[in-house]
Amino acid sequence: MANLFFENSTRTKFSFEVAAKRLGAHVLNFNESNSSVSKGESLYDTLKTFESFGVDTAIVRHSDDYFIESIKDKFKFSVVNAGAGEIQHPSQSLLDVFTLYEEFKKLEGLTIAICGDIKFSRVAKSDIEIFGLLKMKVLLCGPESLIPKQENLPSHCEITTINKAAKEADAIIFLRVQHERHQMFELDIKDYNENFGLNDKLMKKIKKDSIIMHPGPVNRDIEITSHLVECEQSRIFKQMENGVYTRMAILDWLKPQR
Amino acid sequence: MANLFFENSTRTKFSFEVAAKRLGAHVLNFNESNSSVSKGESLYDTLKTFESFGVDTAIVRHSDDYFIESIKDKFKFSVVNAGAGEIQHPSQSLLDVFTLYEEFKKLEGLTIAICGDIKFSRVAKSDIEIFGLLKMKVLLCGPESLIPKQENLPSHCEITTINKAAKEADAIIFLRVQHERHQMFELDIKDYNENFGLNDKLMKKIKKDSIIMHPGPVNRDIEITSHLVECEQSRIFKQMENGVYTRMAILDWLKPQR
Amino acid sequence: MANLFFENSTRTKFSFEVAAKRLGAHVLNFNESNSSVSKGESLYDTLKTFESFGVDTAIVRHSDDYFIESIKDKFKFSVVNAGAGEIQHPSQSLLDVFTLYEEFKKLEGLTIAICGDIKFSRVAKSDIEIFGLLKMKVLLCGPESLIPKQENLPSHCEITTINKAAKEADAIIFLRVQHERHQMFELDIKDYNENFGLNDKLMKKIKKDSIIMHPGPVNRDIEITSHLVECEQSRIFKQMENGVYTRMAILDWLKPQR
Repeated sequence: MANLFFENSTRTKFSFEVAAKRLGAHVLNFNESNSSVSKGESLYDTLKTFESFGVDTAIVRHSDDYFIESIKDKFKFSVVNAGAGEIQHPSQSLLDVFTLYEEFKKLEGLTIAICGDIKFSRVAKSDIEIFGLLKMKVLLCGPESLIPKQENLPSHCEITTINKAAKEADAIIFLRVQHERHQMFELDIKDYNENFGLNDKLMKKIKKDSIIMHPGPVNRDIEITSHLVECEQSRIFKQMENGVYTRMAILDWLKPQR
Repeated sequence: MANLFFENSTRTKFSFEVAAKRLGAHVLNFNESNSSVSKGESLYDTLKTFESFGVDTAIVRHSDDYFIESIKDKFKFSVVNAGAGEIQHPSQSLLDVFTLYEEFKKLEGLTIAICGDIKFSRVAKSDIEIFGLLKMKVLLCGPESLIPKQENLPSHCEITTINKAAKEADAIIFLRVQHERHQMFELDIKDYNENFGLNDKLMKKIKKDSIIMHPGPVNRDIEITSHLVECEQSRIFKQMENGVYTRMAILDWLKPQR
Repeated sequence: MANLFFENSTRTKFSFEVAAKRLGAHVLNFNESNSSVSKGESLYDTLKTFESFGVDTAIVRHSDDYFIESIKDKFKFSVVNAGAGEIQHPSQSLLDVFTLYEEFKKLEGLTIAICGDIKFSRVAKSDIEIFGLLKMKVLLCGPESLIPKQENLPSHCEITTINKAAKEADAIIFLRVQHERHQMFELDIKDYNENFGLNDKLMKKIKKDSIIMHPGPVNRDIEITSHLVECEQSRIFKQMENGVYTRMAILDWLKPQR
């Protein structure tokens, strides 16, 4: 297995590495900065090089929305999408689904709220898609500038307020404010936490049997007030554990038949 | 096995890593930038450290022409030359020889053209040496400023034009224009491709049973017009595959007897 | 095992990696610069992530004196201190003790001199502590500005001159001048070697059956005149070899019972 990450990552990259090693696979960790990419090599040729080495599975993350789509059928290895620009993060969504299933022993009919930067979040987009396929209802909330328009959304999605989401949702997924992707909108950080973050006030409104999720890394005291990150209803670190199992399943499913 | 690369590399470094792992060896990947070299440690002491760890084989690349030569007998581990400045790249030449043998089922009597930056290329120098030992004829072509003088060359080498090389050679090895090693000579890129690169016009002149090679990474549309990189006669990615087998053979041959 | 180094390292990091691999463990090498720490993730959350992956043992180095202390009971994994700011480097001290034991077949009653930057050296502080526990006597010498006051030292420590240390000590540990930690005091380098380094003149005064040690990396011709680094009485590279065995013992001792 080759980890080919053209963006920084801790969680996803190591999660795939741990998963692969537990399954007995060898892992190659490509690091762009020490590579021939600095000599002007094209990414296609870098991938072709790993194909030539006999790599069976390439885990690829890239900042361009369509890079992974554009290469997926060009090589002998399986390509696993580990984050495509602002549009897809399917292995995250699978681990979210697994975490929800583990909690509720069912998926159909669940109501999941997603709160924050929906517009630029690849996690939100993949979650919306897969939750729809699995007949779950999705509530979306967040700052107006970071929320799509209702008319552009599929029918299982509804834009709502964070208070309504707290009352109705079986799980609330808080999304990371992605400082590195777009200049922070004009809201200041304190306002963000007060209006769209998980704070003590909101905590009281959340259903007692619902769970709190976040794809990580958390900006503490922005999306989630620090002392609530590991509160009883939080499944944030459980999600990371489940990420390893989910990626083991992905790798096992893609296992070459020899 | 320890990968001790003091210059960037994708192909050679991972090729040795894959080779070692397939043979069941442990691999240590040294990365200068996170190391004690930044605390002023000498390279001799860095290597001595890896010797102390019990490393059996050190794969070393260094920009200094004579660094590897200077250290090869100083340590208990075997030193494998993975690129010595501008003068040697023996594991590349061995994989080139293997690729030629696989193609032609013989080596003696073959005519191999090498085209491009002969003067500064470690691949060219190692190829010229090993091809001579194996009784192959070598044709050299490229921009005048990047070609040695005929009187400085061994007798199995002949400077010629790219057109003559195309007609006579069983294989043409195109060399990378090494932007990072020397300022681009005054030729512009378009001129380079037209005069010394593999383009559609030259392709027609090449013998039908000859093969195209390149040590990588390719500067597409400079040494080779992009759509020809994977043409039928190209063995460029086959070379990379063969690099793994060649390095497995090197490591197996150096295997400590215990 | 996860190597979580928030400072550069060659010796300690690879020593733990080799130790782990020899014991059959998987190794995760965390590199801060390609990680989510660059997205603002807290170190606590980074460690929590590795805990979620199921890591059994985390090897941690950090420039903050109390970071490791502050986290040691917060996670399910064992935390191994691989260097805490300026105050602790216990695995180095264990390998020093092992090297001394191997040499003298006893520890109690030995006299060990430590020479150089005692004040800012984590190695010196851990050595002083463990040597005291094992009933060894410690002589300290070095530039006045880098030596603590006698009244602040435990009773098994005595500040002395380098000449007296040479005559009395069973082993002299020369410490690295840590250019990267504090601006070089006003002494120039030549003076340092002459007054506090191991040079030919001092070598003659050292007991014939005593040994020379250094935690590495050595600044050649500062702490130790270059041709003496591998002199007959030097155990500097033996220490590095013993570092692997010591860390194997540490990891084996921490091995999870499953």
